[in-house]
Amino acid sequence: MADKVLIYSRFPKTLMKRIGDRFDLLDAAGKKPAEAFSADELKDVRALITAGGQSLKGDVMDSLPNLGAIICYGTGYDGVDFKAASERKIVVANSPGANAASVADLALTLMLAVTRRILPADQYLREGGWSSAKPSPLMSPLPGNPGRKIGVYGMGEIGRKIAARVAAFETEVAYYSRSKHDVPYEYMSSLAALVEWCDVLMIAVRAGPDTQHIIDADMLKKLGPSGYVVNISRGSVIDQQALLAALTDKTIAGAGLDVFEKEPHAPDALTALPNVVLTPHIGGHTLDSHLGMQDCVIANLAAFYAGKPLPYPVHA
Amino acid sequence: MADKVLIYSRFPKTLMKRIGDRFDLLDAAGKKPAEAFSADELKDVRALITAGGQSLKGDVMDSLPNLGAIICYGTGYDGVDFKAASERKIVVANSPGANAASVADLALTLMLAVTRRILPADQYLREGGWSSAKPSPLMSPLPGNPGRKIGVYGMGEIGRKIAARVAAFETEVAYYSRSKHDVPYEYMSSLAALVEWCDVLMIAVRAGPDTQHIIDADMLKKLGPSGYVVNISRGSVIDQQALLAALTDKTIAGAGLDVFEKEPHAPDALTALPNVVLTPHIGGHTLDSHLGMQDCVIANLAAFYAGKPLPYPVHA
Repeated sequence: MADKVLIYSRFPKTLMKRIGDRFDLLDAAGKKPAEAFSADELKDVRALITAGGQSLKGDVMDSLPNLGAIICYGTGYDGVDFKAASERKIVVANSPGANAASVADLALTLMLAVTRRILPADQYLREGGWSSAKPSPLMSPLPGNPGRKIGVYGMGEIGRKIAARVAAFETEVAYYSRSKHDVPYEYMSSLAALVEWCDVLMIAVRAGPDTQHIIDADMLKKLGPSGYVVNISRGSVIDQQALLAALTDKTIAGAGLDVFEKEPHAPDALTALPNVVLTPHIGGHTLDSHLGMQDCVIANLAAFYAGKPLPYPVHA
Repeated sequence: MADKVLIYSRFPKTLMKRIGDRFDLLDAAGKKPAEAFSADELKDVRALITAGGQSLKGDVMDSLPNLGAIICYGTGYDGVDFKAASERKIVVANSPGANAASVADLALTLMLAVTRRILPADQYLREGGWSSAKPSPLMSPLPGNPGRKIGVYGMGEIGRKIAARVAAFETEVAYYSRSKHDVPYEYMSSLAALVEWCDVLMIAVRAGPDTQHIIDADMLKKLGPSGYVVNISRGSVIDQQALLAALTDKTIAGAGLDVFEKEPHAPDALTALPNVVLTPHIGGHTLDSHLGMQDCVIANLAAFYAGKPLPYPVHA
């Protein structure tokens, strides 16, 4: 049987090139496999590549009768139905850590951009407001970073890199995660305590059913009118309707968001706001991050087809 | 004689409030003092407050016959004619370090924003491009920060803070300044060598006649097609025409600019470019930075009027 690999999610072709040099790829480009290919073509597929956030349930697995491995491009795997995979003896693997620096860098970029009002500042110049001495949208100075309280929610590889970067800005850093880690930042006993304490909440928690809408209207109220939230994790962690309301009525000061509840859709009411900086889920989108993720995908696939244990397995 | 202080530059009134609580302010709001006030009003003025970048020559000093002190709000003093001041026995003082964190933070903000293409990314969402699956302006991934070579030009308080912040992003940092400093970064023997080596050039040098247009067409060619320049120092350091050409023909990849040759004017050709992030000289514009600068101004003025040595004197 050939080393056929189905590309389940929609990926730019360029990102699959190195993988395609080693394996025979069938690109479903985001369609259901059974709609993109014949049953005959799919019967030889023993592995697939998916974006971890995309829903992948038993029905899709059943359309690939010989599927043995689900390989996540990236660190996330929240879209994979692990129970369904386990019942079908399908192993799951990911690309851990490869994109951590890139995602952490975007978290800092979003935090700095929204707290320094980069979008209105740039627009003020581009529209000629500065040269014609129109009132500046930046008139009232806002607090800077020294002494600012940064709350990091989640202390995996991304959370650690966010904390290390943001600490260099002379801030105070504290965190909350399920367990205490050996890191030089104060551990808060609850997410609510962290949110109550911090000026900027950086969400770096792994998404799952337990974190669904954990940042809700109450939490945003705790963050308060000079507080910012930055999310580079998954849109599901924040109740997006509550966030929209909090940004509109100034319950919080602003937000930097790379992820949304229903990607690739961000509500019009959100994209119309001046106090947000929005990016299209590009946290891991740097050259080195992609090369690292591709290395992990190739290593996982090579081990699987060689009948060896996968180097980066994940379990629910 | 009353403690009359002339406000020479144009400052938002809110920034002068704490100073006005202590001293009797005459606000020329950017006009020539002799146009804003009568000679009789000006004859009691013994000190003035200026933005260091603004031109302040002998003619202005002569319109204030009792002027004894020029107090710069901020760290810069490049607009002050020191020879003219010295001839008139006028002392000059500034607000050193007070805005260093704020300016360094903006340098990082600009670097991250331009290298991660935050403006086109945000615009892609706001214009509905993402949700309608229009081709993304971010399609080709660009290099990330780990291993990126950051050249810091100037190693004063702002340069040090830029270096400390950017090193936390897993970059390599080197610097050039007139002399070697006791810092944990590689010292380059010339500016040209630094520019040739680096991927991102961070300009944090104190401006003066010796740095006028020191970043010219040749230097930009050395920076190269994947290189970025960030300037939070003074517009005079870069030959703006050469920069515009280099950005337009892709001699360099992009720029983040807080300062311009003729403020508050940025050329239309520059504000039309997609590969720049522009801010209206807001490096020091945070709450804590302003409070720190006001503390310095008040301390300088109080010492001057008490006949004591100024705490933050500067000499040409």
